[in-house]
Amino acid sequence: MSTPAVILLSGGLDSATTLAIAQSAGYECHAVSFDYGQRHRVELEAAKRVGEACGVASHRMITLDTTAFAGSSLTDGGEVPKGRADDAIAEGIPSTYVPARNLVFLSYALGVAEGIGATDLFIGVNAVDYSGYPDCRPEFIASFEAAANLATRIGVEGGGIVIHTPLLNLTKADIIRRGLSLGVDYEMTISCYDPDGQGRACGDCDACLLRARGFAEAGSDDPVRRRCS
Amino acid sequence: MSTPAVILLSGGLDSATTLAIAQSAGYECHAVSFDYGQRHRVELEAAKRVGEACGVASHRMITLDTTAFAGSSLTDGGEVPKGRADDAIAEGIPSTYVPARNLVFLSYALGVAEGIGATDLFIGVNAVDYSGYPDCRPEFIASFEAAANLATRIGVEGGGIVIHTPLLNLTKADIIRRGLSLGVDYEMTISCYDPDGQGRACGDCDACLLRARGFAEAGSDDPVRRRCS
Repeated sequence: MSTPAVILLSGGLDSATTLAIAQSAGYECHAVSFDYGQRHRVELEAAKRVGEACGVASHRMITLDTTAFAGSSLTDGGEVPKGRADDAIAEGIPSTYVPARNLVFLSYALGVAEGIGATDLFIGVNAVDYSGYPDCRPEFIASFEAAANLATRIGVEGGGIVIHTPLLNLTKADIIRRGLSLGVDYEMTISCYDPDGQGRACGDCDACLLRARGFAEAGSDDPVRRRCS
Repeated sequence: MSTPAVILLSGGLDSATTLAIAQSAGYECHAVSFDYGQRHRVELEAAKRVGEACGVASHRMITLDTTAFAGSSLTDGGEVPKGRADDAIAEGIPSTYVPARNLVFLSYALGVAEGIGATDLFIGVNAVDYSGYPDCRPEFIASFEAAANLATRIGVEGGGIVIHTPLLNLTKADIIRRGLSLGVDYEMTISCYDPDGQGRACGDCDACLLRARGFAEAGSDDPVRRRCS
């Protein structure tokens, strides 16, 4: 019997690749996705598509009370930054930062893990081609893993919790190459922070720009549906 | 202007005392309570009463998707342990343990704190007269504080987040004495894991037994309403 693992699946390129990596390593993958009032909620449909196509063992869609997630342009209707140069994306914490998001996501996922007896969690955070969010950095993940092992029954009595971050030190191009080699269908994913109602990407927000550069560097065409394509 | 702080308010004896301590220290207190499908949900009415009586600056009632909280007798309808001796209560993790609960609560509270610009959080955990939950121990709180400072904008750019645990090393009797000296009206609180529909305590679960012993040792009468009194 394969080992169960919980996978955070947003519907984006990174989490789809993470799922493929976990499955290729032989884990029985249980996906968890979150509705936190994000303006790009259409990504949840992408998450559903990806989960179904990959044949996950289960998929929980968790609705979060949005009371805690004020103060971000991803949730409050503010302006999402567009057309930023690479060095601007890499600098500082942008307005799309959502307070405590990965902490809440991982905490919930940990609750799910305990419920199904899993000690392995996968999250597609990346500290190379990323948006400058503090909760994507390796030091945060290590710190959360330590807290998780102190907080939970499986941490204290069981074999210990491991937070897997297979994308942490990869460039976006490396992630895409890895995903393509595992057969990930990136047409099903969506990375855009500001898609239209049909789920077509804007092509101009930080997430779209990072994705476009990644595909260009990987020497591959992005099958994503764009608004103006 | 006083400093804002976020207080986890369950409606129990410990959190009511914690709120009184935070207020007496001059903080502008913003309360957060959670509905996580607990069988003793009547405690949320107690939380509301306590918050109103103490004049909190705001009070958020956050409903959690219960998908993550399976596997506890507090949420799944299993039997709550009754009539246990002190040494049995102190030993091991009981069935009332809820997977990742304090981790989820604190993560949400941190999101609220970022939204209102607070860097101080108060939680009434206690590692002396407690129910053996791993997420009430000082090593977990310290670990969470470290993760919180790495995860958030206020942790990275601001003055740093502090998790206050004023009850951590107090006995239940000490907590009660402290609360009484600050004028806490314990009649408004409820500690029972298995209250009836009118919010009357069973008198026999771990929480009731710890509370009764605390009042006895403090030399005070517990004004709580009991089922058989």
